[in-house]
This record gives sequence, structure tokens and C-alpha cells, in this order.
Amino acid sequence: MIRTLQGKEVERTPVWMMRQAGRYLPDYMKLKEKYSFFERVQTPALATEITLQPVDQIGVDAAIIFSDILVVLQAMGLEVELIENKGPVLPDPVKSAKDLNRIRVPDITETLSYVMEAISMTKTELNGKVPLIGFAGAPWTLLCYMVEGKGSKTFDQVKAFAYLKPDLAHQLLQMITATTIAYLKRQVEAGADIVQLFDSWAGLLSPEDFETLSLPYIRQIVDALSDDVLTIIFAKGAWHSLDKMSMTSAHGLGIDWCIDPVMARKLAGNRIVLQGNFDPAKLLSPIPVIKKEVKQMMNKFGRHHHIANLGHGILPNVPVDHARAFVDAVKSHQFDPAVSMGAY
Amino acid sequence: MIRTLQGKEVERTPVWMMRQAGRYLPDYMKLKEKYSFFERVQTPALATEITLQPVDQIGVDAAIIFSDILVVLQAMGLEVELIENKGPVLPDPVKSAKDLNRIRVPDITETLSYVMEAISMTKTELNGKVPLIGFAGAPWTLLCYMVEGKGSKTFDQVKAFAYLKPDLAHQLLQMITATTIAYLKRQVEAGADIVQLFDSWAGLLSPEDFETLSLPYIRQIVDALSDDVLTIIFAKGAWHSLDKMSMTSAHGLGIDWCIDPVMARKLAGNRIVLQGNFDPAKLLSPIPVIKKEVKQMMNKFGRHHHIANLGHGILPNVPVDHARAFVDAVKSHQFDPAVSMGAY
Repeated sequence: MIRTLQGKEVERTPVWMMRQAGRYLPDYMKLKEKYSFFERVQTPALATEITLQPVDQIGVDAAIIFSDILVVLQAMGLEVELIENKGPVLPDPVKSAKDLNRIRVPDITETLSYVMEAISMTKTELNGKVPLIGFAGAPWTLLCYMVEGKGSKTFDQVKAFAYLKPDLAHQLLQMITATTIAYLKRQVEAGADIVQLFDSWAGLLSPEDFETLSLPYIRQIVDALSDDVLTIIFAKGAWHSLDKMSMTSAHGLGIDWCIDPVMARKLAGNRIVLQGNFDPAKLLSPIPVIKKEVKQMMNKFGRHHHIANLGHGILPNVPVDHARAFVDAVKSHQFDPAVSMGAY
Repeated sequence: MIRTLQGKEVERTPVWMMRQAGRYLPDYMKLKEKYSFFERVQTPALATEITLQPVDQIGVDAAIIFSDILVVLQAMGLEVELIENKGPVLPDPVKSAKDLNRIRVPDITETLSYVMEAISMTKTELNGKVPLIGFAGAPWTLLCYMVEGKGSKTFDQVKAFAYLKPDLAHQLLQMITATTIAYLKRQVEAGADIVQLFDSWAGLLSPEDFETLSLPYIRQIVDALSDDVLTIIFAKGAWHSLDKMSMTSAHGLGIDWCIDPVMARKLAGNRIVLQGNFDPAKLLSPIPVIKKEVKQMMNKFGRHHHIANLGHGILPNVPVDHARAFVDAVKSHQFDPAVSMGAY
């Protein structure tokens, strides 16, 4: 995966799965019964154990540290509750400039050192077996939760906030950006080999709004990081801006399953590594169908400059052997001689 | 709007709004307090009154009959409950082939004549002032509700259903298609000048799945209708298949705000009328911002072959004067001489 992100040709396409450390794994569910979400996230030994589960049990080519994008909002001073099987809730979301009183760009060591401890511990356990991915939410996606206080189908409250109070929105986005840069730098110092930015709600924005409210902050973050670590931007649904994202200093771009890999290569100007894009719901198909569809996906991306992944997080109801079938199908894929070397 | 859909050049771009008869209008809210959702839908005099409200109060260039896409599932034999402010629930969704026992391609007159009565009554009241749009849900979107039993973020149950039981899924899609063709033909006989197919959940499918599970049924429906009535396909999020949809017999294609109009023209091969694509959340902006953004949108679509609309339904919390500002901004728009005549 590291060599792929460095732009090198590889013997075989690397593979991992977003949310690979999670609810589809029985061993994760055992820990979930015993410990609350934030106990799992904030206890380095538990986070390490969870991070390693899919490496050992599914055979993925990278570990991603078990954590949550909302820990950054906690560090910035906001209360975040995680209601099991329902999602996050911020009981007191940001509504106006007054709320700036209780929000800060925090000292990362004071607030988030448990993440860095989990990263160090995981690195030791991994002992070089596979690289370790750190991550953070992109500023736009964190602003969504900061203002709405919970998930939403349309996130129209945060959009209205950004349209009615653009100065305040940009001030908050800049504070999140500063926090995220400091946080990811600490993750790299602690041992993260790669960092991924998750802009889960990018796809709710028009191309112009994405380029105003999201991309400038993503660009700042990857610019601050990309000399020191390999970086991946996953702006879900923002296919329309693949060209602009391909011209940032990021090393890779994630894409979801709603864009054909050939089209994505074209839109990204064949100038960057792509990651994705198997439909997570398709892992509910029978295994022979999964194998067939993985073959198609692999041939569309080509031999190189591709990290196989899902197009979004794995669903909790995916059978473990289906997840394994996905990973195995990538690993054992033989390209037809006719398939391109991978546009790049 | 009719002349635009016929491919003719027009003096001014026509405008309407999806869900224009709805919760943002105080007069609608008064009827909502008195009558349940299905009373409003099934009582032709109420449906007519609600349909006419935005024509009189907002000045839109078309009426769309007040109804719901799920009445087709009721007609096919399924129970549908509408929980106010929460959305539809089917207490007994389809799970297996056994459920075919209780589903039928119904006689439209026996089951849905109240819709046709509302259409006739509305046509009389409109007296030629503006055209009347009839509509139905596209088969894929109706299958989503049929199988999931309610709204969903990912609709992974219906996707799993389609992957695990493709024959049954296609049998159900074909039954919905047959019902929809008969239903829309009756709407046209009753007086609908235009019909729109809403594929609200098209955007959850990969391009290949859209072309397998949705487009063939949409194509059957527009092929059966397009000689007798003007047809619009709105497959939300299916930007990747604009080219294929532009080659069906439909007269117009709806697009959402997540695609730039210039890109949409290009993908649709400049061969079809486009409808859209103002971000519904942007109607929460201050009126001067709405006016500025409408100008930008209009200039991107060009002078002709465009029906101005939102990119999805109007939100309940939009102030009425903001909705009116949107419509007025379209009506009063003056194209710069430099703006193209409208690619087509």
C-alpha cells in the first residue's frame, strides 16, 4: 500500500476496508458488550486490540487505528454522546457566534494523547507486518455534526448556517482545520504511515459549495502533511471535484461505488492513486457474485495505482466470510494480459 | 413548459418546484391540521385545493397533482401508513416469493380513481392557465419501500434482496412497471399534460446496478407514454447515466444540485431538455443570495431547453417569500448577450 501511494508499480493491488475494525466482527462485538464506545476508543489497549482484529482475521494489507472522527470535536470543547446503534449526538450544538466562547483549538497532548498511545502500541504489535493508517474527519463533515448535533439526511441546518453566517462558518472551519493539522501531525509522530481524511458529507454540497466550504480546508491539511506522510482524501460523493482534488498534494483519492472506475480515472486526469470502490451492500451478495464483481472492479482500475477498498464503511450485517472473500478475491486476482497497466 | 419540453425555443425559462404543494405553505398547514395525509390525498376536492395553492400563491408555471408515490403500492395490495413528519411505513414489507400471493397488478379504476378525479377537477379549475403534471415513482424507488418498509440511509436491505433474489426482484419491478404504465396512461386520459417519474433512490446504486435494476423499467414506462404525453425522468443522483437516459424516449431529465449544469449538458450529449437544479437548502439563504445564485444557474443552463426547478423537493422550513423570490428571479432573469442559446 505504501509503494502504491508512492506512485510505484506493485506485484499485487493492496486491499483494506473502511470500518474494517467494527461490528461485523464477532470479536469486536464481544468487546462492544463489555465496554462503552468511548471506553473502547479511549483505552489504548482496547483500541489496539480492535485495530489488529481485521489484520489477523481478514488478512487486510493495512490497519486503521480504531477511533472516531468526533473525538476532535470533543477536544475542541464540545460534548459528544455516542448512542449505541444510533449514532452520535451533540446535546449542545453550535448555533451562533456566542458559542465561540466554549470552543478552542486545543492542545492535542492534553486532549487526545490516548489516540497517540493507541497508535504507538499498535505499531509495536504490528511490528512492520502492515502499515498503519491514521485518520481525521474533514472540516466540512465535522462542521456538519458541530451545527446539526446529529446525523441528518439532508444536513440542511448546517447548510443554512453556512449560507446565513458565512463568516462564522469559515471561522469554525479554520479552527477545525488548525486542530486537525496538529492532530494528524501527532499521529504521524506516533507512528501512522498513512493518514486519511474522511469527508463523509461532501456529497451533499453542490460543486461550488464543495469548493468553497470543504476543499480549501482539505487542501490546507494535505499541504501541511504530505511532505511527512502519505495522504488520502476520501470526499464521498464529490466526484465532480476529482480533478481539483487530484491537483492537491494528496497521494490518493477515495471514490465511492456510484462512479465507474474508468470515469473516475478520467475525471482525476490519470494523475493520482485511486482507492475504492466496491459497493458495501454488495458484500451481502452470495460469495460467487462477490468474486465476479471484484474481478470486474479490478480490471476497471487496472494493474497499478489502485488501492482496493469498499466505497464506504463495511455494513454491520456482512457475514465475516463475505468480507474475507472480498479481500481474498483482490489478493488472488490475475489481470487479463489485455488489461491496461493502470492509468496514472 | 410544454413548448420547452417539445424542444422549442421560448421567450422565458419556465419554472416550478418539486413539492411546491406542501409544508412550507401556511394554507397547506391549515389543511394538514384538519385532515390526515391520506384524507388529503384521497379526497379530490382537497387534493385539487392543495395542487392549486402554489400556482396562485407562488406563481409557478405548472401545477403538479398533490399525491404520493406510494399510492401505487397501496393499489398493488400493500398496506402503507404515513406517519406525519416522519415518513411512510409499510408494516408488512415484502421479504420472499410467498409475498407474491398478496401483491397484484391492480385495476387502476378500482384502486386509484380518486387520483384521476383530482386531476380532472384540477384541470377544470386551472382552465388552461398552466399545464398540469402527473407523476409516479420509478419502479426501483417503489421496490425500495416495498422491501425496506420505510426510508433508509443506505437501503442495503433492498439491495441485498436484489442481489440475493434477482429473479424475484425483477418480477416485482416488472409488476410495478405494468401498474405504473396503466396508472400514468389513466392520468393522461384524465388530463395530465406532462408526467414525471421520480427515481428518488437511484443515487444509491452503482452505474451498473442502475442500468440493471432501474433504467430498463424507466425505459419501458417512457416508451409506453411518450407518444401521448410529455415525459420527464428525475433519477436523483444518477448523473453517471445521463447519456443513457438522454437516449430514451423521455422529453426531459431532472438533475440535482450536485452536478454543474454545464457538466450535465455535456454528459447528456446536449440532446435533451434539462430540469433543475437549485439546492433546496439554498432557499434558506438571504433573498439577495438566492437572486445571485439563480442568475448563475440560469446562465449555466442557457436560454432554452431548460425548466428551472430545485434539485429535490422544497424543504418545509423555507420561508414563503424565499420560494417566491426563487420563482420571481427565474421569471425576471435577463440573459447576458454572451450567454449561449442553450446547448441542446
